[in-house]
Amino acid sequence: MSRRALIFDLDGTLVDTVYAHVFAWQQALAEAGLPIDGWRVHRKIGMSGGLFTRAIAREIGHDLEPNQAHQLQERHGVIYKSLLPHPRTLPDAVLLLRRLRELGVPYGIATSGRRPEINASLQMLEIPEDTIVIERGDVARAKPEPDLFLACQERLGVDVRDCFVVGDAVWDLLAARRAGMLSVGVLSGGYGAEELIRAGAFRVYRDTRELNESLDELGVLP
Amino acid sequence: MSRRALIFDLDGTLVDTVYAHVFAWQQALAEAGLPIDGWRVHRKIGMSGGLFTRAIAREIGHDLEPNQAHQLQERHGVIYKSLLPHPRTLPDAVLLLRRLRELGVPYGIATSGRRPEINASLQMLEIPEDTIVIERGDVARAKPEPDLFLACQERLGVDVRDCFVVGDAVWDLLAARRAGMLSVGVLSGGYGAEELIRAGAFRVYRDTRELNESLDELGVLP
Repeated sequence: MSRRALIFDLDGTLVDTVYAHVFAWQQALAEAGLPIDGWRVHRKIGMSGGLFTRAIAREIGHDLEPNQAHQLQERHGVIYKSLLPHPRTLPDAVLLLRRLRELGVPYGIATSGRRPEINASLQMLEIPEDTIVIERGDVARAKPEPDLFLACQERLGVDVRDCFVVGDAVWDLLAARRAGMLSVGVLSGGYGAEELIRAGAFRVYRDTRELNESLDELGVLP
Repeated sequence: MSRRALIFDLDGTLVDTVYAHVFAWQQALAEAGLPIDGWRVHRKIGMSGGLFTRAIAREIGHDLEPNQAHQLQERHGVIYKSLLPHPRTLPDAVLLLRRLRELGVPYGIATSGRRPEINASLQMLEIPEDTIVIERGDVARAKPEPDLFLACQERLGVDVRDCFVVGDAVWDLLAARRAGMLSVGVLSGGYGAEELIRAGAFRVYRDTRELNESLDELGVLP
């Protein structure tokens, strides 16, 4: 029997950090003289910082120096941490991951975030030290490229076709398709259900609580 | 010939304030020991403060004392103002309203917000002193009840069937239907397009800029 695995996005999927990220980006960009509408930031969260700043710059009609992009990311990190020093997990996220361990379902986390920024979130999830976490710095290209999910899948040692991605953003679902993986959407990042379905999610749940209650619908359980 | 009018929502439609409101509510509620996920707050923004706090309380499973609801609203207002002392208008919102004045298309603003909290936003719109603005305190019941839009329509002196509501939230569109008015959605509040269409929008634009470029599609111009 083939073993199936779950690959989780972090921000907006396991931890409630999206709105703090949006507001921190808005502030960092406004300070740099690049004000941008909140919803446009929101719909780009989950891309890597680099892709994100370039996309934002194009939208505003400016070119960013590589140095400026880096400074914006740093400033975003500082504001984000001041807004949300203690990120909360989403409902039953801790319970869901514990249950997967008890059931022997392999899982990993693949995020466009970077350490040390993601450390506080990871700590809240109460996961073992040896949990597979692929972060932005581990791969060349971030979502919507499939690299993060493929790196996670390799480390898990599970076939691509047996991996299910769980994410809140269109970028997760597009990256999953490009990786050849099925995907499940959650509304806890603030996208609408249809946006997630159009991007490829075969199911959409409200959040990790509803996902935990619906694991049997996914076909991942042994 | 009948005269047609536009009735605008304020937050997320004319001014870019939704993400600051979400984060301010999350902080105010967390301080009161009522932490709640960002997306759940986001999808309730645009209800009145009173309806909003009751809905949030039910979701969390607490009852709120009337006094506590009032305190939460006050605290939200303080945090909101510290996060966003100078709200930005959404793209071409000022231009759109000026063009409507030049074209002689009557318009008003109907918001679940209250003075003085909305004063900074109204000021940014560069509208004449005598612009019709219906705020939460002017009616008994806020969105999704139709009262705000009906009060605005009465003041405008335009038939209900000739009023077009423009809003970013499902609550605006539901209230418009209950008022017997057509409605147009904008994505600038962070809802997905299908959510707005399902709630009754007969068109959805990205923001006030796209709406301004598309006025001829609405059938409101003389």
